[in-house]
Amino acid sequence: MVKEFSLINKYFNQKSSTAPLGIGDDGALLEKNSQNYYVLSQDTLNVDSHFFRDTNIKYLGWKTLAVNVSDILAMGGNPKFALLSISTEEANDSWLKKFSSGLFDCANQYGVELIGGDTSRGSLSVTITIIGEVKKKYVLRRDGANAEEDIWISGELGLASLGFAHQIKTLSLPGHISKKALLALHKPTPIIIDMSKINHLFTSAIDISDGLVPDIQHILNKSNIGADIFCEHLPVPLWIKENDGYDFALYGGEDYQLALTSPKSNRKKIEKIAAQNNLQLSVIGKTNTSKALKLYDVNGDLIKKLKKGFTHFG
Amino acid sequence: MVKEFSLINKYFNQKSSTAPLGIGDDGALLEKNSQNYYVLSQDTLNVDSHFFRDTNIKYLGWKTLAVNVSDILAMGGNPKFALLSISTEEANDSWLKKFSSGLFDCANQYGVELIGGDTSRGSLSVTITIIGEVKKKYVLRRDGANAEEDIWISGELGLASLGFAHQIKTLSLPGHISKKALLALHKPTPIIIDMSKINHLFTSAIDISDGLVPDIQHILNKSNIGADIFCEHLPVPLWIKENDGYDFALYGGEDYQLALTSPKSNRKKIEKIAAQNNLQLSVIGKTNTSKALKLYDVNGDLIKKLKKGFTHFG
Repeated sequence: MVKEFSLINKYFNQKSSTAPLGIGDDGALLEKNSQNYYVLSQDTLNVDSHFFRDTNIKYLGWKTLAVNVSDILAMGGNPKFALLSISTEEANDSWLKKFSSGLFDCANQYGVELIGGDTSRGSLSVTITIIGEVKKKYVLRRDGANAEEDIWISGELGLASLGFAHQIKTLSLPGHISKKALLALHKPTPIIIDMSKINHLFTSAIDISDGLVPDIQHILNKSNIGADIFCEHLPVPLWIKENDGYDFALYGGEDYQLALTSPKSNRKKIEKIAAQNNLQLSVIGKTNTSKALKLYDVNGDLIKKLKKGFTHFG
Repeated sequence: MVKEFSLINKYFNQKSSTAPLGIGDDGALLEKNSQNYYVLSQDTLNVDSHFFRDTNIKYLGWKTLAVNVSDILAMGGNPKFALLSISTEEANDSWLKKFSSGLFDCANQYGVELIGGDTSRGSLSVTITIIGEVKKKYVLRRDGANAEEDIWISGELGLASLGFAHQIKTLSLPGHISKKALLALHKPTPIIIDMSKINHLFTSAIDISDGLVPDIQHILNKSNIGADIFCEHLPVPLWIKENDGYDFALYGGEDYQLALTSPKSNRKKIEKIAAQNNLQLSVIGKTNTSKALKLYDVNGDLIKKLKKGFTHFG
């Protein structure tokens, strides 16, 4: 969830000698057999940092797994198994019942089996390790993008951070949009599709939960390219268009959607599969041979200064 | 670390349809290839519950990984990879430096590569997921023991809980033993051996970190047998012998050692391999066809009432 590159890279990034891919992508890769990798990712959600104590507990159970599912999808894989650690101040039956109900709703939705877990006393916190599978030749790494490719985005952007702003009262949204935004924040829904239907059509992918701009930047850095992104093409709710709230979509974070890259020649195939699978996919820009990320506002004018994304040590 | 069967079983134990072994052993098993499993386990250590805030941070880094290594060994496997999540109140450079130093000491000792991790803000807590490998035919499950087998114990028992009692001042140990006991508590050392050298000689194993008696009981329950265990055969420090402190060895917990079972016909082979690999292994009793665990004190008299073990929701 939180891509703390500086800290993790500084102290924990030893070059792995036998794992095909270690720290620095959405998931790590382990050899399964000659054709397939296991993809592993681990994320922690802490009270007062990632969620409020009075949050909807069933949604929290869902979200705990969903944010991990998103990491597996971002590697082109399908989620399969999960291990769960829960720390709570006390063994609370009612809390665990609600939490597990939401978690299993999500597990059933995405085909995940819980294969391990423990509970212990501590400040309220949940950690999930998720294990997915992907064909070796279709794994979507951050360093796989090329210049002159389309940049695709799944779903809608900015809703979750709108919900957050509404919840902490820095913004007051009208009823219909606030409900949708709060749901996006508390019960995020990564794309629902068998990734093996689409992973061969893309060259790279990333989970944009830290914000579209900083996360796209990771693909560009790893792939050694640049990109142009156009606000007018961003899939955003009407409220953002009417209130010039594009910063929520660009930097807000907590959108458990994917950014992907693909040769333009695949565009028709992607649109067809998206339609067949009820998947919202939008082209928001294109990569190029420069090393720079350039954003253009809804009038097509270059945005001069990029902001920073969302970070839990911000 | 904490085998919270009741809570985990009650809410989270869905029968897994595709994983070879799920919740209810030291590790879960995943298919790797026709000959091998991956073994996965996940443990969390929380401040004020599993460690004190003023603990030696380098040792904490070691212990965080060591307690997970112990789970892999208990499945007969060798640890290979790990994912780490750290929650801290603030991004503290000095703390992370010490912690990572201890963690990598342990990783190097046991041949583990860190392949993923994240850091986030929250109450001080560390979670590791460890991935090991084991040959399918030599996996050591809790349900593999038979009647009329030896019960073996690695290392020495009771030291860690002696250290804990000394630290919280319910006991005052003399200098030489207190030092050793505190080290056992803060920097536990699971057995150092390539498990493929010995796993074929045993029928079951368990990590006895919750206490010898409750953990042996798990093997007996799963294997549907009973056992006799003799205090006079327990490998304990002299202090326990001289002060009749056998409860530390029987119930104390935090000993990251293994209990294993093996046919008596293997005894000579085991003793030979143990000697060759500088491994302390002791026979402490034997299994039988009853369903009961019976303990005998140093005089050979039956101990009438068994106590409960260590639990973080005690």
